[in-house]
Amino acid sequence: MANAMLLPVLISFLILPFSALALTQDFCVADLACPDTPAGYPCKPGVGAGDFYYHGLATAGNTSNLIKAAVTPAFVGQFPGVNGLGISAARLDIAVGGVVPLHTHPAASELLFVTEGTILAGFISSSSNTVYTKTLYKGDIMVFPQGLLHYQYNGGGSSAVALVAFSGPNPGLQITDYALFANNLPSAVVETVTFLDDAQVKKLKSVLGGSG
Amino acid sequence: MANAMLLPVLISFLILPFSALALTQDFCVADLACPDTPAGYPCKPGVGAGDFYYHGLATAGNTSNLIKAAVTPAFVGQFPGVNGLGISAARLDIAVGGVVPLHTHPAASELLFVTEGTILAGFISSSSNTVYTKTLYKGDIMVFPQGLLHYQYNGGGSSAVALVAFSGPNPGLQITDYALFANNLPSAVVETVTFLDDAQVKKLKSVLGGSG
Amino acid sequence: MANAMLLPVLISFLILPFSALALTQDFCVADLACPDTPAGYPCKPGVGAGDFYYHGLATAGNTSNLIKAAVTPAFVGQFPGVNGLGISAARLDIAVGGVVPLHTHPAASELLFVTEGTILAGFISSSSNTVYTKTLYKGDIMVFPQGLLHYQYNGGGSSAVALVAFSGPNPGLQITDYALFANNLPSAVVETVTFLDDAQVKKLKSVLGGSG
Amino acid sequence: MANAMLLPVLISFLILPFSALALTQDFCVADLACPDTPAGYPCKPGVGAGDFYYHGLATAGNTSNLIKAAVTPAFVGQFPGVNGLGISAARLDIAVGGVVPLHTHPAASELLFVTEGTILAGFISSSSNTVYTKTLYKGDIMVFPQGLLHYQYNGGGSSAVALVAFSGPNPGLQITDYALFANNLPSAVVETVTFLDDAQVKKLKSVLGGSG
Amino acid sequence: MANAMLLPVLISFLILPFSALALTQDFCVADLACPDTPAGYPCKPGVGAGDFYYHGLATAGNTSNLIKAAVTPAFVGQFPGVNGLGISAARLDIAVGGVVPLHTHPAASELLFVTEGTILAGFISSSSNTVYTKTLYKGDIMVFPQGLLHYQYNGGGSSAVALVAFSGPNPGLQITDYALFANNLPSAVVETVTFLDDAQVKKLKSVLGGSG
Amino acid sequence: MANAMLLPVLISFLILPFSALALTQDFCVADLACPDTPAGYPCKPGVGAGDFYYHGLATAGNTSNLIKAAVTPAFVGQFPGVNGLGISAARLDIAVGGVVPLHTHPAASELLFVTEGTILAGFISSSSNTVYTKTLYKGDIMVFPQGLLHYQYNGGGSSAVALVAFSGPNPGLQITDYALFANNLPSAVVETVTFLDDAQVKKLKSVLGGSG
Repeated sequence: MANAMLLPVLISFLILPFSALALTQDFCVADLACPDTPAGYPCKPGVGAGDFYYHGLATAGNTSNLIKAAVTPAFVGQFPGVNGLGISAARLDIAVGGVVPLHTHPAASELLFVTEGTILAGFISSSSNTVYTKTLYKGDIMVFPQGLLHYQYNGGGSSAVALVAFSGPNPGLQITDYALFANNLPSAVVETVTFLDDAQVKKLKSVLGGSG
Repeated sequence: MANAMLLPVLISFLILPFSALALTQDFCVADLACPDTPAGYPCKPGVGAGDFYYHGLATAGNTSNLIKAAVTPAFVGQFPGVNGLGISAARLDIAVGGVVPLHTHPAASELLFVTEGTILAGFISSSSNTVYTKTLYKGDIMVFPQGLLHYQYNGGGSSAVALVAFSGPNPGLQITDYALFANNLPSAVVETVTFLDDAQVKKLKSVLGGSG
Repeated sequence: MANAMLLPVLISFLILPFSALALTQDFCVADLACPDTPAGYPCKPGVGAGDFYYHGLATAGNTSNLIKAAVTPAFVGQFPGVNGLGISAARLDIAVGGVVPLHTHPAASELLFVTEGTILAGFISSSSNTVYTKTLYKGDIMVFPQGLLHYQYNGGGSSAVALVAFSGPNPGLQITDYALFANNLPSAVVETVTFLDDAQVKKLKSVLGGSG
Repeated sequence: MANAMLLPVLISFLILPFSALALTQDFCVADLACPDTPAGYPCKPGVGAGDFYYHGLATAGNTSNLIKAAVTPAFVGQFPGVNGLGISAARLDIAVGGVVPLHTHPAASELLFVTEGTILAGFISSSSNTVYTKTLYKGDIMVFPQGLLHYQYNGGGSSAVALVAFSGPNPGLQITDYALFANNLPSAVVETVTFLDDAQVKKLKSVLGGSG
Repeated sequence: MANAMLLPVLISFLILPFSALALTQDFCVADLACPDTPAGYPCKPGVGAGDFYYHGLATAGNTSNLIKAAVTPAFVGQFPGVNGLGISAARLDIAVGGVVPLHTHPAASELLFVTEGTILAGFISSSSNTVYTKTLYKGDIMVFPQGLLHYQYNGGGSSAVALVAFSGPNPGLQITDYALFANNLPSAVVETVTFLDDAQVKKLKSVLGGSG
Repeated sequence: MANAMLLPVLISFLILPFSALALTQDFCVADLACPDTPAGYPCKPGVGAGDFYYHGLATAGNTSNLIKAAVTPAFVGQFPGVNGLGISAARLDIAVGGVVPLHTHPAASELLFVTEGTILAGFISSSSNTVYTKTLYKGDIMVFPQGLLHYQYNGGGSSAVALVAFSGPNPGLQITDYALFANNLPSAVVETVTFLDDAQVKKLKSVLGGSG
């Protein structure tokens, strides 16, 4: 081929699709300043490589708290590049004796990958009320189906760390204790809908800062 | 456990996710003042319990009309809380002798639940042109697959009422007669595409307020 | 038009699409004898009008039990006609003092329509831990977003009845108490992941028939 | 690079993913002998290039019939390669004076591309009952949103041909006349739900081979 | 029926749904002036028949270029009416000896319909690395599954034309050569990730206007 | 409350939903012995905790090959528990000087999390042909939008390891070099659709074991 001659026409050909396709959507980095929609945030203009990168999971979360654990999210709110891509992540740090309490993700399934230590994990099915539990070591993965109650706690003598991936950019996190005892849901209602004793409800309301 | 000592750390733990997850999308109440999108309306800020509640189906619709029936919608336009949730509702009131004429919902399947009276309902499949009909009494349900022609009429001696649920927040409602005879679609075109006689078309155009 | 002459050709035209389109899928009534798939059950052959009709919600559920309530499902397992149609239903009967305990539907949003009595209902968001509650009277509707904890209880002096519609054919139902106390999840694990006291856990395990 | 040395290791590397990924699903050609599912047919084993190719639209349909038109489908039932791919096609032949009568596709939007002649086409919206019509010449395209009533007829002095693409592998085709007059739906019901006169209904029932 | 008497009530009935359903979404023509969302552009107000019509594929693309071919898109950026409808189109003109180079559509499957000439087309599966090729004549269709590498070139002695439909409104178009050689991706990186020789990479970078 | 008295009725209540909901689908572990469907494999009966657990990513892949890298998949074919859950995973091992060559995943977006070493990664957009690259260190994450060309290579002096999560259970993996040079696609066709020189194509065909 005589490249020198072909150069001008080829470039003219290739430049054409460039402009014609400028509105093509390969991705849609979230513009968090706009209102969300049911399918995710509107796309931000002027995207760069940094929008597809997140450093926030590189540092261990602070586990100096009651549950001796920390969940560091990389959901669309923290990592706008995942908007519309059907995926997000989080880092789990669980100190010795620590626990991520019973919770659900209303809007995504979860895949957990242990990078350090030992984690005991389980979920409960809604159809047969069966409990599925595993002891997970470094390199093991476990999947938790969308919307089902599950938990993780440290099962070893050293800190545990896991990377968690979700099947959506905004999985949500509903901790059962937090939903029941850390808000203004009246104790009488909690007792009615859970059969817990009044003293138990009031004790946890007090610990978790709830009122009513 | 010594709750008094644990209180501060637990609260600090629990307050953290609160702010970190503030952008999580559990729901997306429609902001009807914004332009719609293919996935539904943008989310309105400042949501309250009233946004998930609708009173408009509590009152019977006015059936003093030709069809002796009324459809009262609780679609996203009337009930913004269903935006993005894949569901909506309507109330059907059909007086004695009344009818909901042949129609489709282009964007949802329908589930009908009779709460009063007797309703004769049917739909027609597109593949085999088969008619599926049932006489429905109080407490019966029937499902009408998305996009197929169907109808309901009162089959008893007293008023009939039904709650209708849809598999989407914005199901649409295309009444065949209304589409053919209540607009400016020229009579000649109607005749060409339906094989109806000219007199029949002009008669219904006249009744339904169409022109052309 | 001279119908007599046109008849043969038109029929020949219309018979053609009939066979050509015989494989068209207007609906897909579940063949429950086949294994399920992620999108629902395979389609059953030989469908009739009865497949789109369900009588099981016409009768009140039996509320002579601890919770004084009954949930009667019309999910795909009971009502195969909803397979693949993105909708299903249930009937709620709540006697005076009765309650549908705290629960989630992992796979659908819920729309509740009160047909008799008074129901107090609420759900809790995961993002802000806010409680959204309403007192619902006959004719009122309320929507509960997918996967979020919610509850309903009778708030009046007479029986309450509601029709519930779901945004999917197989919404699931995970009652928190049932998941924690009615299976073999060890008490020690329950306590670790919920912060409930040992006595409380053992008491409810005993009541609900759980072991461990 | 010294290719001769690298050859064995590279091949061993590349052969590995081959077997590991053998279950990867790039496509899912329909096995029409299996029952359909809500997401399409199970995948047929032993696929070849011919499965992604269809010759059936190359020949003009027979327009020697009342409507002087023919619709030749390339839906999943005729062209199994489109199964699961969200697309299908059809060929439209419309002789002079021919018409594709008023119809809907319950499960897909339609994109029409005129390859010969002149076609008058229109669709009617459900929300505002507006009619959208265009005269289409060779090379023009028009899109018809899912589930809405539409029609096409020859608007010129020569045969018209169009390629039609659909946004799903199994769009369905519900011709309104056919649904009303070519089956056993009783005339009285047709009249009740359409307001058509008895004589008109019986005339078209007779022409289209319906009973009742 | 006494139409004269019924007219007023029927109109009042029919006008009611008109306003009540004014927010119903039958379609959502793209407002390209708004930011895109993961589900497509916000809906433009004030839609007319012209929004569902596109004339841009009626004229042959200019094939006086190196590849002797032209792709004329009717994606949402050119044809806003397809927004949210799951379909779009393009026209392919391939002169004698012309080629549409190896490429993928990241966001849609493709259905190709030959309207003139002969096209050799093929795609490569990711699971088994199998090549599927066909020689396509006028009237033939071929389907290319989403995201897989494929190509088309003129296999005859006259110009070839095809209409291409896509299973989404914004399919994207990633030409492998263009991605590797027409931007600032450094030659060393290209060589590392493709095993191409340095001279080959620099030659094509020069031809295609790339730098680095 | 007097638990002893309440016990029998509560159990009877709770046992009821158990059987009624036995067909509820919380998850759908793949039965790989059945044919796949467009939505994933049919569900296997008799599921246990082991079905949601996978050990195969715990061991480093063998990087003693030309690319000095290994991709160990945990797709549905290896890890049936992810079937229908919208997520899967893989492990990346890249020795010093190693590379995961240019490739796409036709059916999923990818989220990469570095657990050891330094990885240089990049992807190329289809709309603007822009290259987005980052140097990733331990703990960093990067997201690669569905279907776009991307690559990863070791950018440091020690082995690199990453966990990769995908937004679907069956993402596919199409390595460009493998698609072009490791099968029977004739060299002449490769040259026509890539503009590569004949010597270059034949050299890589020879290295990668392709024919033609």
